[in-house]
Amino acid sequence: MKIIIIGASGTIGKHVVKALEADNEIIRVGSKSGDYQVNITDVNSIKALFEQVGSFDALISTAGDGHFGPLAQMTDADFRVGIDSKLLGQVNLVLIGQHYINPKGSFTLTSGSMAHDPIVLGSAVSAVNGAIDSFAKAAAIELENGVRINSVAPTVVEESPEYFPFFKGQIPVAMHRVAQAYVKSVLGAQTGQVYPVL
Amino acid sequence: MKIIIIGASGTIGKHVVKALEADNEIIRVGSKSGDYQVNITDVNSIKALFEQVGSFDALISTAGDGHFGPLAQMTDADFRVGIDSKLLGQVNLVLIGQHYINPKGSFTLTSGSMAHDPIVLGSAVSAVNGAIDSFAKAAAIELENGVRINSVAPTVVEESPEYFPFFKGQIPVAMHRVAQAYVKSVLGAQTGQVYPVL
Ligand SMILES: NC(=O)c1ccc[n+]([C@@H]2O[C@H](COP(=O)([O-])OP(=O)(O)OC[C@H]3O[C@@H](n4cnc5c(N)ncnc54)[C@H](OP(=O)(O)O)[C@@H]3O)[C@@H](O)[C@H]2O)c1
Ligand SMILES: NC(=O)c1ccc[n+]([C@@H]2O[C@H](COP(=O)([O-])OP(=O)(O)OC[C@H]3O[C@@H](n4cnc5c(N)ncnc54)[C@H](OP(=O)(O)O)[C@@H]3O)[C@@H](O)[C@H]2O)c1
Repeated sequence: MKIIIIGASGTIGKHVVKALEADNEIIRVGSKSGDYQVNITDVNSIKALFEQVGSFDALISTAGDGHFGPLAQMTDADFRVGIDSKLLGQVNLVLIGQHYINPKGSFTLTSGSMAHDPIVLGSAVSAVNGAIDSFAKAAAIELENGVRINSVAPTVVEESPEYFPFFKGQIPVAMHRVAQAYVKSVLGAQTGQVYPVL
Repeated sequence: MKIIIIGASGTIGKHVVKALEADNEIIRVGSKSGDYQVNITDVNSIKALFEQVGSFDALISTAGDGHFGPLAQMTDADFRVGIDSKLLGQVNLVLIGQHYINPKGSFTLTSGSMAHDPIVLGSAVSAVNGAIDSFAKAAAIELENGVRINSVAPTVVEESPEYFPFFKGQIPVAMHRVAQAYVKSVLGAQTGQVYPVL
């Protein structure tokens, strides 16, 4: 299977690569790293990526930024960071990628547990995560030629200790459990699902 | 109680007004209609509204547009219609309104059942609805001075027959049931809740 991984060099992405590389052709993509580069906040950059890579069987995205900060000081511009990157970046990978993906292919996006399990400073990221999960559920009933879509919603992961102070009492999840959610999405047959990793 | 209703002239908004006007001071707001006008897609227009209206006890939003159309042809620009209007319009009512609302006040936003119960042509609106619900859950744990926030998530309503062809098999919900969800949010004490009206 030819699998594009956007964010392949990242904390989560590199474990997803490890879980899938033995049996598949992995196309590693990052903003600066990887076999190809893309800026997911730029529609033309996404189009150029698919033109270079050509058809594929699965796309996994483990990329996308968002703003963390107090609600009391949050502005429209702060809120738009995650909208433009984590939400529309991933949505545009699907809107554009649907025209390049092979029949029976799959898209797997990354949201996060904060959609339903919020933390202080996280309201903009919670909103983005909720949007991604609902988009996956909705896009699943329209994608053609048997193409599937799911989202993976991890809580804080064990290799991101810089986030632990913001998730007090939350047991960080092991990287292999996170990676297997992406494997389940790509190698399974489900669509329109959110896979929480808690 | 001084209650601002953004979208007071609308299909849903006018029933919310009816349910609350006997016992409260209602400030009716619309894009063209009402006691005051605002364009929720414009941050400066929202600021000007609160400067004019001054402090208040509850804000209800039953306003916000979104794009309906096939996923196969959807573009970034299509997707942004709902992001800019229904999502960021309502989010900015909270981000800005939190600096004008009275202690123990409440915000009530409108999302919709499509966050979890998608229809064909609805993927952009589903995403926006999911974002609003998650934002309400997250903002609830940060709002200060006892200020609350909830979202109301109706399915298609009985007074919107133009939408019925897109919701085949869905029994439209009675207007008084929709209006009571807003009453429950404003006059109840819960926060961070999504009230489905199905
Ligand atoms: N870490 C967690 O605990 C956690 C938990 C739940 C959800 N998540 C979500 O999972 C996603 C990945 O998190 P992570 O911690 O693995 O992130 P990370 O370590 O910062 O890795 C980010 C990856 O995305 C790539 N990237 C960054 N900006 C990009 C852009 N504009 N266009 C294309 N690629 C870009 C980076 O490529 P380069 O290296 O080439 O720059 C890198 O490969 C994020 O959306 C995050 O919200 C993370
Ligand atoms: N109708 C349904 O079946 C249904 C079901 C679930 C969810 N919803 C959601 O509920 C919300 C209201 O729906 P509706 O059917 O009641 O809508 P509607 O009848 O079209 O009414 C819209 C209201 O919002 C105001 N408005 C429009 N654009 C605005 C802007 N940019 N700034 C400020 N106010 C603006 C309008 O004011 P003017 O009259 O002055 O222009 C009007 O009062 C929408 O977000 C919709 O997605 C509707």
